[in-house]
Amino acid sequence: MNDSVIISLPDWVEPELNKHPEVFPTLEDRMKLVISFSKMNIDNKTGGPFAAGVFETKTGKLVAVGVNRVVPLGCSTAHAEIVALSFAQKKLGVYDLGEPGLPDHQLVVNWCPCVMCYGAILWSGITSLVIAGSSPEMENITGFDEGPMHPDWVNELEKRGISLIDNLLKEEACKVFNYFAEKGELVYNARSNRT
Amino acid sequence: MNDSVIISLPDWVEPELNKHPEVFPTLEDRMKLVISFSKMNIDNKTGGPFAAGVFETKTGKLVAVGVNRVVPLGCSTAHAEIVALSFAQKKLGVYDLGEPGLPDHQLVVNWCPCVMCYGAILWSGITSLVIAGSSPEMENITGFDEGPMHPDWVNELEKRGISLIDNLLKEEACKVFNYFAEKGELVYNARSNRT
Repeated sequence: MNDSVIISLPDWVEPELNKHPEVFPTLEDRMKLVISFSKMNIDNKTGGPFAAGVFETKTGKLVAVGVNRVVPLGCSTAHAEIVALSFAQKKLGVYDLGEPGLPDHQLVVNWCPCVMCYGAILWSGITSLVIAGSSPEMENITGFDEGPMHPDWVNELEKRGISLIDNLLKEEACKVFNYFAEKGELVYNARSNRT
Repeated sequence: MNDSVIISLPDWVEPELNKHPEVFPTLEDRMKLVISFSKMNIDNKTGGPFAAGVFETKTGKLVAVGVNRVVPLGCSTAHAEIVALSFAQKKLGVYDLGEPGLPDHQLVVNWCPCVMCYGAILWSGITSLVIAGSSPEMENITGFDEGPMHPDWVNELEKRGISLIDNLLKEEACKVFNYFAEKGELVYNARSNRT
């Protein structure tokens, strides 16, 4: 069998991060970083138009970023949220970002997570989720399927101690999806060829 | 930032697989392998009581196995299903196990997937899911939270070209969960300390 599965970030990520401060005080600062990374992932042809960042909620210190890596890595679970959460857990040496003694952590994403990433968020230990939007726009623009979310998904987050902030810089996020769609790029849409 | 996240299987997996044939003709053969791996993961203290296998649906040829690796790897997304699907995709060099030209693939798991793995299954390219059970027994025995599944999750699978076979060797699977619970082991239950 194979020895291991390796999830890596594109080479441009680290130099790009070096252009920024380590701390992103406002939610807008955090979302702007994430949206800019979603666009750079398109321009560098290193994955789909999605990016995410894990921050310390209170201070805004960046812990880890992730971008969609499905096609380049040949790994259908390498969505931006899972990449960001996994790098954050690796960096801190924990499987639970909500472990006692750690500061609260927040995940910032340039759109509502798909059902897989929704579940990943539940088990990650973050206590705050910030998204640019959750309406049908993204699916309509890109053709991506978010999967069957629980009808009461927001309350189900809250039941598990995760608060949601929605509709932050929605227009800016949609601009990137439109940019992606205009290029005629494909968002991998599992099983669409079979249904 | 960190260079990469590495998902690895325990050292005992390869020698254990070498004791088996490469092909598992019946569904029972496949599930028995998976249940035996779920128990070995407990006995070797290499993760939670869950295992999964990706097989060629028609022939039963084993493509990849996975076991739960959350605690040992410090990675909350390293559930058995995600590990098995990722190794299968790596082995075949595809992000879509349903890619044209490939044989149909099946995922066999020793219980119903949690909401994260349910989503991962949707995007993986498998066309058949076989599980030992989906009733509340596993959650009751282990205390694990499966997360908020869509009420119509079976039809939502089928809409995306994935058929489900449920309740295969359920008692054998539950025996392993009871064995796990009797040892007083903890299944990581995200955020239970905050709700």
